[in-house]
Amino acid sequence: MKKVILSGMRPTGKLHLGHWVGALSNWVELQKNYKCFFMIADWHALMSEYKNASSIKENTFDNVCDWLSYGIDPESSVIFSQSEVEEHLQLFMIFASLTPLGWLSRCPTFKEQVKQLKEKDINTYAFLGYPALQAADIVLYRADFVPVGEDQIPHLELCREIARRFHSIYKKDIFKEPQPLLTQIPRFMGLDGRKMSKSYNNYISLDEEDSELERKISEMFTDPQRKKRKDPGRPHLCNIFNYYSIFSPGEKEQVDRECRNAARGCTDCKKRLIQIMKEFVSPRRRKKKELMRKKDYVAGILQDGKNKAKEAASSTMQRVREAMKF
Amino acid sequence: MKKVILSGMRPTGKLHLGHWVGALSNWVELQKNYKCFFMIADWHALMSEYKNASSIKENTFDNVCDWLSYGIDPESSVIFSQSEVEEHLQLFMIFASLTPLGWLSRCPTFKEQVKQLKEKDINTYAFLGYPALQAADIVLYRADFVPVGEDQIPHLELCREIARRFHSIYKKDIFKEPQPLLTQIPRFMGLDGRKMSKSYNNYISLDEEDSELERKISEMFTDPQRKKRKDPGRPHLCNIFNYYSIFSPGEKEQVDRECRNAARGCTDCKKRLIQIMKEFVSPRRRKKKELMRKKDYVAGILQDGKNKAKEAASSTMQRVREAMKF
Repeated sequence: MKKVILSGMRPTGKLHLGHWVGALSNWVELQKNYKCFFMIADWHALMSEYKNASSIKENTFDNVCDWLSYGIDPESSVIFSQSEVEEHLQLFMIFASLTPLGWLSRCPTFKEQVKQLKEKDINTYAFLGYPALQAADIVLYRADFVPVGEDQIPHLELCREIARRFHSIYKKDIFKEPQPLLTQIPRFMGLDGRKMSKSYNNYISLDEEDSELERKISEMFTDPQRKKRKDPGRPHLCNIFNYYSIFSPGEKEQVDRECRNAARGCTDCKKRLIQIMKEFVSPRRRKKKELMRKKDYVAGILQDGKNKAKEAASSTMQRVREAMKF
Repeated sequence: MKKVILSGMRPTGKLHLGHWVGALSNWVELQKNYKCFFMIADWHALMSEYKNASSIKENTFDNVCDWLSYGIDPESSVIFSQSEVEEHLQLFMIFASLTPLGWLSRCPTFKEQVKQLKEKDINTYAFLGYPALQAADIVLYRADFVPVGEDQIPHLELCREIARRFHSIYKKDIFKEPQPLLTQIPRFMGLDGRKMSKSYNNYISLDEEDSELERKISEMFTDPQRKKRKDPGRPHLCNIFNYYSIFSPGEKEQVDRECRNAARGCTDCKKRLIQIMKEFVSPRRRKKKELMRKKDYVAGILQDGKNKAKEAASSTMQRVREAMKF
């Protein structure tokens, strides 16, 4: 039996290369060896996007098309929307009933995010319960692993904590305690050297047009101290070089050497990167556009995913109800 | 069109005369003039009874049998379980997303109840959200009125507040703002003169056996200063007299007079009350026992109620989704 993985994305906007490097590329690898549930976390999205709820539906369709065009295989992985599987809210409510308030209010990510997303007005009741809903998401599918970054480890600990509290109250062990699957995420920055993010407007989207790829990469900063073509460069300080190391690691050494020797100028270096990125993005963008036109096909994948997710989730809920006699 | 009423009970134990006097008798009257939705609030029950969740199912069946035997008419009223209508959790989650944490944490009833129910360990995440779930319960059925006691008025205000916040965010008025239906609840005490309550063990249950009625009423205190038969009594200080005023108001004046004149002794007075209470409880208890045997009949009523409730709730959720474009 393959081990189970649950992961998800909040459909809060268009996906960009940051999502590819930070999550999606990992998913594509994981699905080869694990049974993967990939979830559109629309209830989670609502928590921050409630003032613009209509975007959630659009983004769901758009993001799923990205997932598919970037290599998520709907045959081997389950692709579904959280809100379509009612068991999420049922188990959330049960977890909510047995989770002490302090476990959530003391969660380090809560205060941090409320501070960060000040303009979003997310000091809400739902947002406080984020980790409890996440716990339900995970254990519903009896996930063995959840791919997480360091910052998400407290949430996963809380998930295990809640599962254990359930087990101790109802004297029956029914959930798996999920373990983190820490993935080494390469350092990857937006066009301006800050974290790639929609709100910084420093991103390359997963369906970027060729002309935009060209413009955006051309405008990127290189080593600020390399003023003339003949000055030697410092690739370890150059964002363009970082993109090479991710999207064309085979060329990395050569670029590094030629930059330091001033054998290659920044303009040529960018031109080559533009070419690399076009080769990477264009076929996927075309595939996505095709998918965007095949609405029924994509809806069918989500429907199929819903059915499979529901099967797994309702079998867990059956055990939950038996343990609780509820 | 009849105005709509939503009211509910948490299935946390057997029902007693306190429930009859405080709520059920009122429901029986209300259903004559209003379209009533009477809800078994099992999600709400779980918030305090999660350590004993199996009791909720038993109590649901037991309480519904009480409702029916005490005069709730399943033809004119909708009798249903909250957890059977998934729209409650959906709207709860939406309300949770747009309700500022402070609205709930500053709610006077929250702190009060956490203090009162210390042994229940209810300082939980779900319990904090109680009024938000209640708000969803009410507006789902477009209730015009909610029968409440004074102490519940802040919750109803919060419900209107949440509805208004929804309207202002999504620029569409879809909910009715429910108004309180303040009912004058007569003063009614348990056997020991404190509030009638399961936890004080000072109650007469709605299906009390005749022998128990006899024993319990015989043991009640009367005016403590009336030591001898010939001493005049003070009916306004006597719990037995209070029961007369509720269950046999026609005799009230006579009892009052005869007590003050010492024309009637406490023993006789209790005997007569026992008779009155037997006449009140016995036929209803017998009816209940009959219903308890007709499991399928009662299940059918709940199923029918679920269908009707679901119809109303899903039509509201349709409007909710349209307004939010979610």
